[in-house]
Amino acid sequence: MTPRNNKWREYVSYKMDRNKFHKMLGLEFVSIEPGEVTGELVFQEMHEQQNGYLHGGVTSAICDMVSGFAAYTMVEQDQQVFTVECKVSYYNPGISDKFYARGWVEKAGKRFHFCASEIYYLKGEEKITVAKSSTTMAVIEAGVVKGKHL
Amino acid sequence: MTPRNNKWREYVSYKMDRNKFHKMLGLEFVSIEPGEVTGELVFQEMHEQQNGYLHGGVTSAICDMVSGFAAYTMVEQDQQVFTVECKVSYYNPGISDKFYARGWVEKAGKRFHFCASEIYYLKGEEKITVAKSSTTMAVIEAGVVKGKHL
Amino acid sequence: MTPRNNKWREYVSYKMDRNKFHKMLGLEFVSIEPGEVTGELVFQEMHEQQNGYLHGGVTSAICDMVSGFAAYTMVEQDQQVFTVECKVSYYNPGISDKFYARGWVEKAGKRFHFCASEIYYLKGEEKITVAKSSTTMAVIEAGVVKGKHL
Amino acid sequence: MTPRNNKWREYVSYKMDRNKFHKMLGLEFVSIEPGEVTGELVFQEMHEQQNGYLHGGVTSAICDMVSGFAAYTMVEQDQQVFTVECKVSYYNPGISDKFYARGWVEKAGKRFHFCASEIYYLKGEEKITVAKSSTTMAVIEAGVVKGKHL
Repeated sequence: MTPRNNKWREYVSYKMDRNKFHKMLGLEFVSIEPGEVTGELVFQEMHEQQNGYLHGGVTSAICDMVSGFAAYTMVEQDQQVFTVECKVSYYNPGISDKFYARGWVEKAGKRFHFCASEIYYLKGEEKITVAKSSTTMAVIEAGVVKGKHL
Repeated sequence: MTPRNNKWREYVSYKMDRNKFHKMLGLEFVSIEPGEVTGELVFQEMHEQQNGYLHGGVTSAICDMVSGFAAYTMVEQDQQVFTVECKVSYYNPGISDKFYARGWVEKAGKRFHFCASEIYYLKGEEKITVAKSSTTMAVIEAGVVKGKHL
Repeated sequence: MTPRNNKWREYVSYKMDRNKFHKMLGLEFVSIEPGEVTGELVFQEMHEQQNGYLHGGVTSAICDMVSGFAAYTMVEQDQQVFTVECKVSYYNPGISDKFYARGWVEKAGKRFHFCASEIYYLKGEEKITVAKSSTTMAVIEAGVVKGKHL
Repeated sequence: MTPRNNKWREYVSYKMDRNKFHKMLGLEFVSIEPGEVTGELVFQEMHEQQNGYLHGGVTSAICDMVSGFAAYTMVEQDQQVFTVECKVSYYNPGISDKFYARGWVEKAGKRFHFCASEIYYLKGEEKITVAKSSTTMAVIEAGVVKGKHL
């Protein structure tokens, strides 16, 4: 995909740096390319649901993060990205020491981007899909939204 | 709704107690009734997305929690509840010191429950909806699933 | 809800009249109010899925219609409404001679409206929900979209 | 994918034959393989929404059909498939004389299958995606469900 902002990498990094929640979760971003972002999560006790697996809320939060930052690679300088809606399907329980996440822009538009993501882990060489998501991200013009860190 | 387990309250409390992620997020459960669970979240810096608002991933995690525990009020002893899929729509940005969450079972079935939730805050006396969700929860027989804390 | 077009009723009727698919399905619109549209469907053989029930595709099409026209009651003259995405949950099989549909705008915005709908039938005096939906509808300025009947 | 019924092809054909709604819409099934079904739709006036494009309700119905019959290729003899929920995202307006549909099983389970589908048309050699869907299909044991044509 062709970025719309020649400083897209700096812009996304700037946004990531201001995002407190991904830091608290421990999601590390591994690669950032136009239209695609990947990350990794080392499983910790705080991520557990009631059976000791990866909590679905951690999964959906990570889906939102990699999709949202993938969308940020495809906007103009100072445009904002907001999640309009997101659906997550949980394919398999998340039972692993480490999880991998990939988010990408399926179709970049003027008003919104359609994004997708997957969370998986490795069992030997086999890739086990924990969840897949589809998201509508709104692209908002600079100046329309007012927030603490804009 | 009529519970299927006369120890439903103890069973849900037991499950909540083992859930690490809701504690880490700071979600407090305020009421637990058959088919409905409510909670409150005091906004903290760790919950911020890049503009200083409530992160969509926190919102979706809370939707999952109140929906999932509402589902747990409507299963038999030792049955497990798993999120099959969840869609969250984000109606308004989450800009408040405190958020309220309500999850409920829309239709309880044998194999799965359809659940819904809403997250909102108060602006004076006005209720501002941050997000609404619809979720399919699978109801799994005791013994089928193996986890650390079953 | 307060309409944004003082000729909203004529505008929606104009749009309904040009919509061929609802006529082919046999969906009759019963009431049209600002932010809410209701309709009825007399069950016919053409609506059957493989077991003789109401086809899920008929259900989802009706969800789209009542939601979409509810959205059309809340736009300005000549603005267009397009479905961005729709999720339908199927609560109960559709086994009846007649079905009722209700679509409404949950939150009207500038760029898009969040809509919801329900399809149900009556079993004596009991209301049986067949399906519920949540939809994002884009509101597009006049002149941006070109179609045969604009 | 490996079918669970050595008469899967006959079983799916039997189900397709009893499905009245796909015939009324004019959807022709082109290929049926384990875990994947494709179809084609010649655009007709009855498929039009208010602007003369492919109606979103036709699109969502076709998503349901190719996904549902893909799921039927992956069940045991006499098991039934029901749509639990479906989300459709509309990427581009459907403006063409002919549309192509593909539905597939993403993950086949014991209780439900996760399915996906895409609807597209060809503009010269370019493939234009009209919509993508993700669906949860319930797999129900023979004898549990009673319908006219079981």
